[in-house]
Amino acid sequence: MENLTNSAEEKQHSSLLTNSWSKKEELSKNQKPNGVGGFVLVHAGAGYHSESKAKEYKHVCKRACQRAVDRLRAGALAVEAVAAALVELEDSPFTNAGMGSNLNLSGEIECDASIMDGKSLQFGAVGAISGIKNPVLVANRLLSEAQKGKLSAGRIPPCFLVGRGAHEWAISHGIPPCPSEKMATKFSVSAYKRNKRKMEVAEKMDTGHNQTKKTRLSGENDSGCLDTVGAVVVDLEGNVAAAVSSGGLAMKHPGRVGQAAHYGCGCWAENACNMNPYSTAVSTSGCGEHLIRTMLAQECSAAMQSEDAHQALLEAMQNKFISSPFLASEDRVLGGVIVLRCCRCVETQQSQNIQGILVEFLWSHTTESMCVGYMSAQDSKAKTHISRLPPGTIPGQSLAIEGGVCRLMSVVE
Amino acid sequence: MENLTNSAEEKQHSSLLTNSWSKKEELSKNQKPNGVGGFVLVHAGAGYHSESKAKEYKHVCKRACQRAVDRLRAGALAVEAVAAALVELEDSPFTNAGMGSNLNLSGEIECDASIMDGKSLQFGAVGAISGIKNPVLVANRLLSEAQKGKLSAGRIPPCFLVGRGAHEWAISHGIPPCPSEKMATKFSVSAYKRNKRKMEVAEKMDTGHNQTKKTRLSGENDSGCLDTVGAVVVDLEGNVAAAVSSGGLAMKHPGRVGQAAHYGCGCWAENACNMNPYSTAVSTSGCGEHLIRTMLAQECSAAMQSEDAHQALLEAMQNKFISSPFLASEDRVLGGVIVLRCCRCVETQQSQNIQGILVEFLWSHTTESMCVGYMSAQDSKAKTHISRLPPGTIPGQSLAIEGGVCRLMSVVE
Repeated sequence: MENLTNSAEEKQHSSLLTNSWSKKEELSKNQKPNGVGGFVLVHAGAGYHSESKAKEYKHVCKRACQRAVDRLRAGALAVEAVAAALVELEDSPFTNAGMGSNLNLSGEIECDASIMDGKSLQFGAVGAISGIKNPVLVANRLLSEAQKGKLSAGRIPPCFLVGRGAHEWAISHGIPPCPSEKMATKFSVSAYKRNKRKMEVAEKMDTGHNQTKKTRLSGENDSGCLDTVGAVVVDLEGNVAAAVSSGGLAMKHPGRVGQAAHYGCGCWAENACNMNPYSTAVSTSGCGEHLIRTMLAQECSAAMQSEDAHQALLEAMQNKFISSPFLASEDRVLGGVIVLRCCRCVETQQSQNIQGILVEFLWSHTTESMCVGYMSAQDSKAKTHISRLPPGTIPGQSLAIEGGVCRLMSVVE
Repeated sequence: MENLTNSAEEKQHSSLLTNSWSKKEELSKNQKPNGVGGFVLVHAGAGYHSESKAKEYKHVCKRACQRAVDRLRAGALAVEAVAAALVELEDSPFTNAGMGSNLNLSGEIECDASIMDGKSLQFGAVGAISGIKNPVLVANRLLSEAQKGKLSAGRIPPCFLVGRGAHEWAISHGIPPCPSEKMATKFSVSAYKRNKRKMEVAEKMDTGHNQTKKTRLSGENDSGCLDTVGAVVVDLEGNVAAAVSSGGLAMKHPGRVGQAAHYGCGCWAENACNMNPYSTAVSTSGCGEHLIRTMLAQECSAAMQSEDAHQALLEAMQNKFISSPFLASEDRVLGGVIVLRCCRCVETQQSQNIQGILVEFLWSHTTESMCVGYMSAQDSKAKTHISRLPPGTIPGQSLAIEGGVCRLMSVVE
């Protein structure tokens, strides 16, 4: 069963996809774009966003977009801009990433984060890291250190560090520690206490017939489990990057690592190349185990090389996620993605060469809602939106999909 | 550039692939095979195996095959048999897994392991786990616990645990701890001391021009860095399973996790289904970062759905590994895989229905050598082999590929 909603925005812009631009046409290397540009799409999680908190989620998405665009306007590459957006998302006490992350079974915060650069195809990730305010900065530093080549005595630099070792590596690379008690919020601590009591009751009542396994944890709202954050960016050179960060499932076992630290599962970014006409970037959110076992970020990225982006994402979410044979035993398949794909194009207007990047951006989720924000460097402010499943449809079995199109233009000298 | 060697065995048996069997023909569910069977292929790492230690490596492969076959003969499923093979490989002080693992930069042992069941498509993994003699048993327990469904209060069971949390989970599930000093061997400790000195010299001499980065670490032999272990199994019901276990790179940073704990990278197993005519199982070895960034296990598995298994693996190793755009900046791409694919077939002889499974097994590596062993439940003992790159070819730029075919037969009542 599929449930499809189309935003007005998408309908309005979809004709652009068949306009007169010469897609995929490359400018010669001597031609430099004049101007600044780029585009960012962020999410504050696929989960459930109550109306009462909608404003906060939209605000943080707006600020994250602004941060990325500030960096793009200053000439930063996509990977730097995506990291900047993630820092803002992590710093919000309302999101389940960095500050305000879910507490694990022991009442501690352990975070996962990763980042991928579509230009170099480098990847950096941290899993179950404690005492670091911005896990994405450690992932980003792993990525940039790996780009410098081998370590002393020919050792290969790591792309993925976990736990105490990850924390120590971060400190030794100048990333300041943050006391765990500062990262917990009033909300995360009270949700932990409530969940602890629920678990104790559920376990006492458990007669061995799994009757109480149906009792679900809930936090301040049901989104507590799932609202991982992420972003995808394209810069004016057409480079893409993606990042993701998560505090993980509420009451997870210590040491549990979810999709946010997992290559191919949490984020994916790949510049266009001979084999792929489109640059693509993806960031995922939702139940980490479901997203790992379906490698959803990489799957969605690969799907986006098809002609029709919207149809390709719809089919990927339906066939590679909801109906995935890898999740056949799951009753509810919970997740969401944000996707960006782009290609270069050139048009001539009044004897001037206008270089452009055609950006298609989409989001899709099987959770009740997903909060997104997006902005181009040519916009004065970000747009935000809380996407919801159509009324009457069942989370984990249905999906929503929306998106839009944006053109980044600049005059070529 | 590709370098291809074919074993005599493969040449001898390749005609079987075009014989009169009716491939992919399924028996009805009422027909039960009479007899026991199954097949196992193991590796003791892709790296460098000196002639002086060849005997030890072959011995451990032989014992691992025997252990798996013992379980298969007792009616075990593929996933149980593959775990049994891994325990034997981990227990050898000569392999870089479990006992005798490489020491990290702090002189500690941290292991990665994972296992995948092609029948349920469940996966379990541990990363950077210390103080557990057989990390694969923790991964296997994660897999089997996940199959039981949700935890109390609707919590989703983890598929991937790391560090201290993974150790604690193992203990709480009855897996005994093992003091770290018991897991280090005379060889691993002396290699650590030698490497530590080499690093200190290299770092002192490093003038900032990366001149000494060419000095490579070496252990008792050069294989110290790479000899991860793994196995792939098919049982008589045609279920496949794969597993992998590693102590990781010598002198790695604490908390570094390699491909052995990474979904899609260390091992892969997928039973045949509507979309895939063949069941496939893959286990990888080599430089973890290279194997992660190319998702080599999953890539090889997907490739094996092509008609010609040998050609498919050759192309996957060449295009998705050695020439992968994801490793464009690497000077040497080091890794190896063992692969198994199978399909059911039936033939009628003297009015008896003979049910069979046609098993094709292959190994390929870009490292100097790779030690493998294989055995069917119908064999009296395992065969072992140290595969080497052809003389004069360059590790990391060339490959060797070999394999064979085996028929598992039983009379259907």
